[in-house]
Amino acid sequence: MFSVFIAQSLDGYIARRDGSIDWLDVVASPGEDYGFAAFYASVDTLVMGRGTYDTALGFPDWPYAGKRVIVLTHRPAESRHGEEFFAGPVTELDALTGRTYVDGGNVIRQFLAANLIDDLTLSIIPILLGDGIRLFEGGIGEHRLVLEEHRAFPTGLVQLRYQAQR
Amino acid sequence: MFSVFIAQSLDGYIARRDGSIDWLDVVASPGEDYGFAAFYASVDTLVMGRGTYDTALGFPDWPYAGKRVIVLTHRPAESRHGEEFFAGPVTELDALTGRTYVDGGNVIRQFLAANLIDDLTLSIIPILLGDGIRLFEGGIGEHRLVLEEHRAFPTGLVQLRYQAQR
Repeated sequence: MFSVFIAQSLDGYIARRDGSIDWLDVVASPGEDYGFAAFYASVDTLVMGRGTYDTALGFPDWPYAGKRVIVLTHRPAESRHGEEFFAGPVTELDALTGRTYVDGGNVIRQFLAANLIDDLTLSIIPILLGDGIRLFEGGIGEHRLVLEEHRAFPTGLVQLRYQAQR
Repeated sequence: MFSVFIAQSLDGYIARRDGSIDWLDVVASPGEDYGFAAFYASVDTLVMGRGTYDTALGFPDWPYAGKRVIVLTHRPAESRHGEEFFAGPVTELDALTGRTYVDGGNVIRQFLAANLIDDLTLSIIPILLGDGIRLFEGGIGEHRLVLEEHRAFPTGLVQLRYQAQR
């Protein structure tokens, strides 16, 4: 089972052009994580791109302790925390058991293009950015979705959960 | 008061690359217009681009009878139904009274860039198209929004209404 959990502005950006996500502050609310901790607890494996991985390496502590981590990269590195490096087609990851958190715009697009996503939780931030880095850049093909849940929070964040039809 | 009422796919497209909107059929439901008739009844004036206008001219009957119509165009034509042609900056339309329905991707972007939109109703269709014509193409600037209403329909269409901060 492959899952996406991501936030974007109403106009479809997951970050500003320079990568910054300061605008997520408009929905910052003490003690409110919009379901992320529960989602994260439900996943067994994370698949991420090299950029996300390199960022994580810069943290004081390895943030993915207790999870299987697969890094999509053509430049394998030394595994420091049990993480695995994978350079093959993502369809080969279809054999993974449990729930896999597919993270990062590029990685999500690869999985969508391969028709591997089972569910997608999208949090819509009440802001138009006007420019930035998009999640849905095209090239992912057409996918019919089934709305499973929708929820609005006092901050104006709207969270939608869809099931994809594989 | 300037209002937007528009539908897009979850990945942000308002039409396929060739302009077709056949994919809206996934939310077609007898007797369900997702609030459009009530919205349309509430507007006094429509502002549209030349393409929308030319399309309307091709209909057997003029579809905007009873409404003031302003067509943004640099090629004024003969007014056949009282419609007006306007080539100036949209900020000059700020003096319009009543409620104005701002329609069409280009026109909406001009009004957003000029900070003239008061409210925005966005219907999210449960489909990823992967390619097409976007509403939010960039160049509209940054706008903080306030979520005023959210509603999900049995078809999976989610309708969000935001107030823009002018």
